[in-house]
Amino acid sequence: MKMKVAQLQTRVYPEKEKNLDQLQTLLDRIHGEKPDLVTLGEMFTCPYVTENFPKYAEPEGGPTWQCLSTLAKEYGVYLSAGSIPIRDDAGHVYNSAYVFDRDGKQIARHDKVHLFDIYLKNGDAYKESDTLTAGDHFTVFDTEFGKIGLFICFDIRFVETTRIESLMGAKAIIVPAAFNMTTGPAHWELSFRMRAVDNQVYMIGTSEARDPSTGYTGWGHSILTSPWGDVIEQLDEKEGIMINEIDMDYVDEIRAQLPILSARRTDLYELKF
Amino acid sequence: MKMKVAQLQTRVYPEKEKNLDQLQTLLDRIHGEKPDLVTLGEMFTCPYVTENFPKYAEPEGGPTWQCLSTLAKEYGVYLSAGSIPIRDDAGHVYNSAYVFDRDGKQIARHDKVHLFDIYLKNGDAYKESDTLTAGDHFTVFDTEFGKIGLFICFDIRFVETTRIESLMGAKAIIVPAAFNMTTGPAHWELSFRMRAVDNQVYMIGTSEARDPSTGYTGWGHSILTSPWGDVIEQLDEKEGIMINEIDMDYVDEIRAQLPILSARRTDLYELKF
Repeated sequence: MKMKVAQLQTRVYPEKEKNLDQLQTLLDRIHGEKPDLVTLGEMFTCPYVTENFPKYAEPEGGPTWQCLSTLAKEYGVYLSAGSIPIRDDAGHVYNSAYVFDRDGKQIARHDKVHLFDIYLKNGDAYKESDTLTAGDHFTVFDTEFGKIGLFICFDIRFVETTRIESLMGAKAIIVPAAFNMTTGPAHWELSFRMRAVDNQVYMIGTSEARDPSTGYTGWGHSILTSPWGDVIEQLDEKEGIMINEIDMDYVDEIRAQLPILSARRTDLYELKF
Repeated sequence: MKMKVAQLQTRVYPEKEKNLDQLQTLLDRIHGEKPDLVTLGEMFTCPYVTENFPKYAEPEGGPTWQCLSTLAKEYGVYLSAGSIPIRDDAGHVYNSAYVFDRDGKQIARHDKVHLFDIYLKNGDAYKESDTLTAGDHFTVFDTEFGKIGLFICFDIRFVETTRIESLMGAKAIIVPAAFNMTTGPAHWELSFRMRAVDNQVYMIGTSEARDPSTGYTGWGHSILTSPWGDVIEQLDEKEGIMINEIDMDYVDEIRAQLPILSARRTDLYELKF
């Protein structure tokens, strides 16, 4: 069964509403192509600086959530609304990826499970955990095209994440992400290709466009990889749109020819989750 | 601590002894370079056809094993003697990778854990399990350079293999292998680079040279990748030798800067083995 995927590599403006207006404009522009699924980048409404996450955070069901739900319904698409900062009742802030169905109903929420905390040689550190709380579950949801997985950026660094969601039944995995200018050229394409190969799934990675004027210079390069590890399409660093049709039956074909998930030696190891 | 690694991409002759003579010749040739570790390809004494494995198989301690032990001692190297077919007392044949230390003592044996059984679109199949029995353990051994892991070819297809040996303490992993002309161009370099990145280990992949006159046309392309995923060196398909020094301290450096193994969410998942 074929699914048309539109990946929107948008610019992130400091004004939250401007990002939502931009989304509506783009949904209008691609409407004639009849996409089934539309995806966005990590923190696509909030310039990527840890201090911003609490400032931009809203509760689930808040104005941004409402707008996204409405847009999904208005355009009749599955909307993977990248990720946005969400505050819970206790005041914790999460990096949260929502998916709304064609009726605007929330059908998935993934909170980034692995926060990006790194320690530079010079003693400096960049720690998302300064302002964010980590999620506590993995996320797969049902569609008429089959099951689809969902996680966020640094989650891809851990082989367990993609493996778990594949074992949960995902045939395609959506990854809102924002690699940087060090990890991007080194590991972005490699990671998406190899997770696809290892689990024989489509990997749908969507980043925001690069904006050198902000505090975080992202790699961009939104990417779509096949279950054989081929790059179906990849953008550069600029604003852009990718629209591709993927065939979910191809996943079954690849898995039949080269059995990996089914040939795991579960008598010798087991991934418990 | 630095370790000098020599990878020998040899031609595989139908005459078992000729392969051992060739090994001695090559050890002689590289002796002046003072390698610490010498590696060879999968089934480097036995042309890679399933029917050959039982025909070429010897017991552990047999003439081939004796010769390899003697060569390790004679040249004072850790010898990862690729893999060879080994028959146990019950008549089972294994694809077995031995490592001998500088005194010729066997310090590791890995039996291929995941056998290469694939099913082609036209209904044909290629099944190592027709003649081989699968191994039942993962393998890491001690050296003065730190712990080193060991597995064979198709074992690399499963993210669990490299993860397990890395969790067992390996900082470098030796992989005798023989990808083919389909999987080689598609996934060989990708796999070695990504396993290195995911586990922040050196990956040492050694293949035999391509010989189009035999039943199995191998990809060659022996490879060495750094814990950051860079290809340090890669051969083409012809007979060849790679000699490189790797710095085991660089593994610790990379692991400190970008915590992956230590940042796994073991409260949410656990790889039991």
